[in-house]
Amino acid sequence: MNEFELIQRYFWRQTVVRQDVAIAIGDDAAVIDIPAGYQLVVSTDVLVEGVHFPSDAAAQAIGHKALAVNLSDMAAMGAEPAWFTLNLSLPDVDENWLEAFCRGMFDLAGEYNVQLIGGDTVKGPRTIGIQINGLVPTGQALTRSGAASGDYIYVTGTLGDAALALAHHQGKLTLTEDEQQKVSSRLHTPEPRVRIGQGLRGIANSAIDISDGLAADLGHILEMSKVGARLNMPDIPLSSVYRTHFEVAGGYATAVGFGDDYELCITVPGDKTDKLESIGLELGCRFYLIGEIESEAGIRWITADGERWEPPSHGYSHFR
Amino acid sequence: MNEFELIQRYFWRQTVVRQDVAIAIGDDAAVIDIPAGYQLVVSTDVLVEGVHFPSDAAAQAIGHKALAVNLSDMAAMGAEPAWFTLNLSLPDVDENWLEAFCRGMFDLAGEYNVQLIGGDTVKGPRTIGIQINGLVPTGQALTRSGAASGDYIYVTGTLGDAALALAHHQGKLTLTEDEQQKVSSRLHTPEPRVRIGQGLRGIANSAIDISDGLAADLGHILEMSKVGARLNMPDIPLSSVYRTHFEVAGGYATAVGFGDDYELCITVPGDKTDKLESIGLELGCRFYLIGEIESEAGIRWITADGERWEPPSHGYSHFR
Repeated sequence: MNEFELIQRYFWRQTVVRQDVAIAIGDDAAVIDIPAGYQLVVSTDVLVEGVHFPSDAAAQAIGHKALAVNLSDMAAMGAEPAWFTLNLSLPDVDENWLEAFCRGMFDLAGEYNVQLIGGDTVKGPRTIGIQINGLVPTGQALTRSGAASGDYIYVTGTLGDAALALAHHQGKLTLTEDEQQKVSSRLHTPEPRVRIGQGLRGIANSAIDISDGLAADLGHILEMSKVGARLNMPDIPLSSVYRTHFEVAGGYATAVGFGDDYELCITVPGDKTDKLESIGLELGCRFYLIGEIESEAGIRWITADGERWEPPSHGYSHFR
Repeated sequence: MNEFELIQRYFWRQTVVRQDVAIAIGDDAAVIDIPAGYQLVVSTDVLVEGVHFPSDAAAQAIGHKALAVNLSDMAAMGAEPAWFTLNLSLPDVDENWLEAFCRGMFDLAGEYNVQLIGGDTVKGPRTIGIQINGLVPTGQALTRSGAASGDYIYVTGTLGDAALALAHHQGKLTLTEDEQQKVSSRLHTPEPRVRIGQGLRGIANSAIDISDGLAADLGHILEMSKVGARLNMPDIPLSSVYRTHFEVAGGYATAVGFGDDYELCITVPGDKTDKLESIGLELGCRFYLIGEIESEAGIRWITADGERWEPPSHGYSHFR
């Protein structure tokens, strides 16, 4: 099977066909119609074997996650994801792997009506680069730079479960079958908060998705918005499984420092909290209030005892 | 230096600042204004060390070429390139390498006013994935599917020089210093035919850039347009250096089969050839007439003696 046969066999069979795609896969480039009154939103993420996923990771989960982490960036902008390209580097043509990878990727693409419009397939170390393009009504993107003193800080779900699942996978702790089932999807097949992100337009002053850990990612909001924050640690949502293994998992340090959660962290001004509540009810999403934006720079982590605490690490960084 | 410092140090210093970039590098995604009456054009290409460039290739040339091959796809669509994202996988932080890589990439970006709007930087085998976004007036993209029987077939420059430079690099033949100087830029720092591509809107019926060799790439046009072609081999443009080393370089088989030329191959109807001539004069580009589109499928290669010839290979393909 050569490159062209591979592309036709695996990548031409997606089910999503959008009306705004004038020219899809098969030409030198794709051509897309952008509706008036909307801005284009562009993001990209790469997953490298051995760095972002182990060599023995299930291909279906890799396909899901490669797209999910990109959809999560659209969510954090309040954008509607629409089209993506795929850069796939593979050491060889493993048909079972490709079949499962495509299933994971295209199932998620179908869920959000995002169409694959192009890409490049090359021989090399297993690496998946996806770039996603989306739309947002002009001027309504959720940025990292809009947080204001007095804003309430929320996260959209529990933190630390992906870290817990990885620790189990690496043999650093042992989860029961039942516990594994509860947290492993958080690591392998995270659900991007796409609809929630779109619902937050006009409500949130700022937003980011938690990929590098709450400490680092909230830190990006604070830096870009030139503000600080006070966080009430007992309010940080942890799953019952995480609470069970709290100490061996690394406690709050892991929960706020590891990342890979793909929840949103948002800040909302006081006069919009009732709208936030409505959106939460409408979309079936709970927003966990964890603290407040303050004018003083930095994050003040406050324990249940009213003490100050400092996380030992500041999130995941390559090359450190 | 961690990932964030690396990004700030090397990738925030570009000189291109476009007015249509509402949010640039530094948020979850970039936000872009698309003018009314234009369509978005999207393409992506990956370069892998050891596959697309040797480990000892000059970083500046790699930076140039990674962007150039993407700009070449915009040229082949008749699009105006505007913004790009960069996915960079690196085994380590080599400051000299990064410095030179960025110089090559940003110098070319400045030449065509394309702005880096985002990306992802990860630890892994050296791989460069660039996605480029451009604009084309609605309905005016040059496609692979518009060739019609009777169209004249042109290429925008000599073929085979990149192959010749690589053969020298690999020790398969020996070029003089002077010859090297003439052909090595064709391999290492190709010039994408961006302005020519835009000039061909409304003139060419179809277009493709020659990355996999004339035989394979013209083949894509023929397949998508459901037509065939007759090519006069003596009219295929070869540089004087290529002619000197014609036999040892592999003759026409290499010139039309290897690729990496990044010239355009276009088809133009008879009533537009005078417009083509005007554009050629205006942009200082020579269009070499090499054959004609015919209704019968396949390519008929005709030698100087009027004999039929068949190329032994059909262009470069991964996984073959």
